[in-house]
Amino acid sequence: MVNKTKEVIFYHAGCPVCISAENSVLSLIDPATKVRIVHLGQEKEKIADAEKAGVKSVPALVFGDEVLHINFGASLNDLK
Amino acid sequence: MVNKTKEVIFYHAGCPVCISAENSVLSLIDPATKVRIVHLGQEKEKIADAEKAGVKSVPALVFGDEVLHINFGASLNDLK
Repeated sequence: MVNKTKEVIFYHAGCPVCISAENSVLSLIDPATKVRIVHLGQEKEKIADAEKAGVKSVPALVFGDEVLHINFGASLNDLK
Repeated sequence: MVNKTKEVIFYHAGCPVCISAENSVLSLIDPATKVRIVHLGQEKEKIADAEKAGVKSVPALVFGDEVLHINFGASLNDLK
């Protein structure tokens, strides 16, 4: 049985790629999973958390110790 | 209400990034969604379908007319 994930953080920066990926990802994820959406353009203080989690670009999904970079919207360095 | 996706194709090529992304993605996706897994290294005839769907690298998720490239395992051109 694949390990069921309970909380996921979706990091983005409001870019067009981010918005379309957000809609797609939300339509795919198990409804039982809690998705926290973080807009790094508006919540700059969260960039350090994202970087610590291994995020290199946005949009990205973080859950447990895994990072899924989805398509390519912007590099994390460009958001600093 | 976000449009619920019923079938998703997960394209990969058996690379380490692909395998880890596959496990992660499967653990996230709504159990009501049917996931078809296609190993483009073994099913070369499916590369044209993936390309037509807009896949540029693997692993990638295709559903409806959307493509989510996940991390970067290999370019589609390298599989030809």
